[in-house]
Amino acid sequence: MAAAATSHLVSSPACRRHRRTLTNHRLSQNPVARIPVAPLKGAAAGPLKRLQLRAAVSQNTAVDQQATAFKHCFSKSRDGFLYCEDVKVEDVMESVERRPFYLYSKRQITRNVEAYREALEGLEGAVIGYAIKANNNLKILEHLRGLGCGAVLVSGNELRLALRAGFDPTRCIFNGNGKLLEDLVLAAQAGVFVNVDSEFDLENIVAAARIAGKKVNVLLRINPDVDPQVHPYVATGNKNSKFGIRNEKLQWFLDAVKSHPNELKLVGAHCHLGSTITKVDIFRDAAALMVNYIDLIREQGFEVNYLNIGGGLGIDYYHTGAVLPMPRDLIDTVRELVLSRNLKLIIEPGRSLIANTCCLVNRVTGVKTNGTKNFIVIDGSMAELIRPSLYDAYQVNKHNNIICSLSYKIDL
Amino acid sequence: MAAAATSHLVSSPACRRHRRTLTNHRLSQNPVARIPVAPLKGAAAGPLKRLQLRAAVSQNTAVDQQATAFKHCFSKSRDGFLYCEDVKVEDVMESVERRPFYLYSKRQITRNVEAYREALEGLEGAVIGYAIKANNNLKILEHLRGLGCGAVLVSGNELRLALRAGFDPTRCIFNGNGKLLEDLVLAAQAGVFVNVDSEFDLENIVAAARIAGKKVNVLLRINPDVDPQVHPYVATGNKNSKFGIRNEKLQWFLDAVKSHPNELKLVGAHCHLGSTITKVDIFRDAAALMVNYIDLIREQGFEVNYLNIGGGLGIDYYHTGAVLPMPRDLIDTVRELVLSRNLKLIIEPGRSLIANTCCLVNRVTGVKTNGTKNFIVIDGSMAELIRPSLYDAYQVNKHNNIICSLSYKIDL
Repeated sequence: MAAAATSHLVSSPACRRHRRTLTNHRLSQNPVARIPVAPLKGAAAGPLKRLQLRAAVSQNTAVDQQATAFKHCFSKSRDGFLYCEDVKVEDVMESVERRPFYLYSKRQITRNVEAYREALEGLEGAVIGYAIKANNNLKILEHLRGLGCGAVLVSGNELRLALRAGFDPTRCIFNGNGKLLEDLVLAAQAGVFVNVDSEFDLENIVAAARIAGKKVNVLLRINPDVDPQVHPYVATGNKNSKFGIRNEKLQWFLDAVKSHPNELKLVGAHCHLGSTITKVDIFRDAAALMVNYIDLIREQGFEVNYLNIGGGLGIDYYHTGAVLPMPRDLIDTVRELVLSRNLKLIIEPGRSLIANTCCLVNRVTGVKTNGTKNFIVIDGSMAELIRPSLYDAYQVNKHNNIICSLSYKIDL
Repeated sequence: MAAAATSHLVSSPACRRHRRTLTNHRLSQNPVARIPVAPLKGAAAGPLKRLQLRAAVSQNTAVDQQATAFKHCFSKSRDGFLYCEDVKVEDVMESVERRPFYLYSKRQITRNVEAYREALEGLEGAVIGYAIKANNNLKILEHLRGLGCGAVLVSGNELRLALRAGFDPTRCIFNGNGKLLEDLVLAAQAGVFVNVDSEFDLENIVAAARIAGKKVNVLLRINPDVDPQVHPYVATGNKNSKFGIRNEKLQWFLDAVKSHPNELKLVGAHCHLGSTITKVDIFRDAAALMVNYIDLIREQGFEVNYLNIGGGLGIDYYHTGAVLPMPRDLIDTVRELVLSRNLKLIIEPGRSLIANTCCLVNRVTGVKTNGTKNFIVIDGSMAELIRPSLYDAYQVNKHNNIICSLSYKIDL
């Protein structure tokens, strides 16, 4: 781990009282004994241990300022082992306290943010609002904050996390259709932006402003009615979505804001399209609609300066070589529109900042067969990684032996 | 809450500094203002709070010994509100510190266990091995232990939990195809039964016995190759399953046990069919197969006394009035087989002990519409209840207005 600019999540192990290897315990009759099963380091004993994975980070916090090109942090070396940046993953595995664990490349996170920052050059006051729901590990949040990101929040606890991680509240946006009054009061006190989602949400924001004794900067979340062509679980901006206000109700909301000058200050408009978008045309279409709404809003005397467009870029999970849009592609589709209205752009990348920076490192604990099918048994389970069973999410590379040989070199 | 023999899980709230109701903050223009939205009690402020739900239990630990009939704990009263036993759920909601929360009926848990105990009468030494994965709340575990249950474990942490909850180790069974050596050492030290799942698992158990300096009581988990006719995610006993040993390999395992007399003592055989079974014939078929295997095992001089059959009963989630098997139906199908071989039966109910004892109490925080569809927004989310999106699990009653009106009386 020494010089690696990587951070890792570690599940702390059992105590190490019985540090014996098991090579002298092999059963000669075992038909799979020829398959190398790595000896475990310790044996468990003692009282109940913490059941949670916890986060740890390497001491080397240096950020690789040179490596801003968009390269991938995981690679297979000639010896058949997986490397993260220049560190052999198996070496990390041997050094951690608990397994399985998530291994992150801090450098890759940096590179991902830099790609957005470079794309946003020329757009003054733009905010990269990291969507905390993508990964709420505190060390990662602190790193992203250090890189200048803002934060996009969808619950009171995410807001508390963002504050603890030191995010500038004026670069944070509180989003969601079920924001609780108590969380809105915290948002008002902290001074974060709040996206108005519905009539009752506006009512709660007004109430929160009164309780906090502070005016709240709000954006109207308008449902643009655009089909993002993604999995229905992550589509948020089409007509049937439960998020946002109906655009035909815009005037009602403008009137409501006007009638609460002590509680609300309208600063912009927001829309969210959904996650894992692979066609940036959708962004341009939505931005064109949103700019028209901003024109309408300004015509009524509101000084709105922010255009907040949410919706994350797709990830090349399958390494098929598909040409997926990069941050620059995304920003370039809306650049002229944003500049034409002198707007400050807030984007909300989440997954696209973090998805390609991490792997879950599992140890192979054994191999078995049921006669027709062989099973590689590992120490990770649905408890550590639920997403594939949740919605067929891609997470483990089935097509590429890099990830299969991740924590252990297997010859079957 | 006073006299209710209910326990509840509570998510602690924000601080209560700003205890004001919001009735004076209504916006006259709000088109949904006529829909009653209950005022929230407190407002959030201050430092980061614990992000986890935590468990609490009412002080009344009296068990209703009379109520052993199989009745349901949730009912709708004439006033349209939901009751848990004789407690109005809304009253509980008003008294808890944090929302949303899970509300359990301790009496219902007791009734569910009693139904199994009564069904097992006449089967000496039988063990109700509660499958901890069904619900690992410590207070619930302690209650089940107090009712005489054993525990079925599938990880080292579940084993630690069971020990902390005070379960008798000799009524606990450690199961699973990926048991880690360190956890097996703990199992050997504690003296729990261990189900052997594969060649490498047996090897690890031998190693654990040597490290712990204790002989381990083992059962052979035999894949019975029975189709339980359930969702593929919860089927565990068919030919393609990754669990258990192939029955044609039985002799190899018997030889392996024989050659390790200081490490292993074979005490029985185990099979597991899967969860949510609605046809108890499957149990009888599996038991008939298993009894034949036990005959074979005894012929070789092993003194095996335990027949461990896993697989949970189905739940009448939809309240369709479908005649689902009761514990007595389950046990009666195998009673004669078990008695004919003078075996001690270990069963592994999990979900059928706990599924009908609980509800997730959500508060309606607002109502909105997108023009064609109305949305009832609540304070619970996928963070508190993931199963419906995970595998279309039934959890919220879509057909029965009892649960819809659960925490709030709604007239739409």
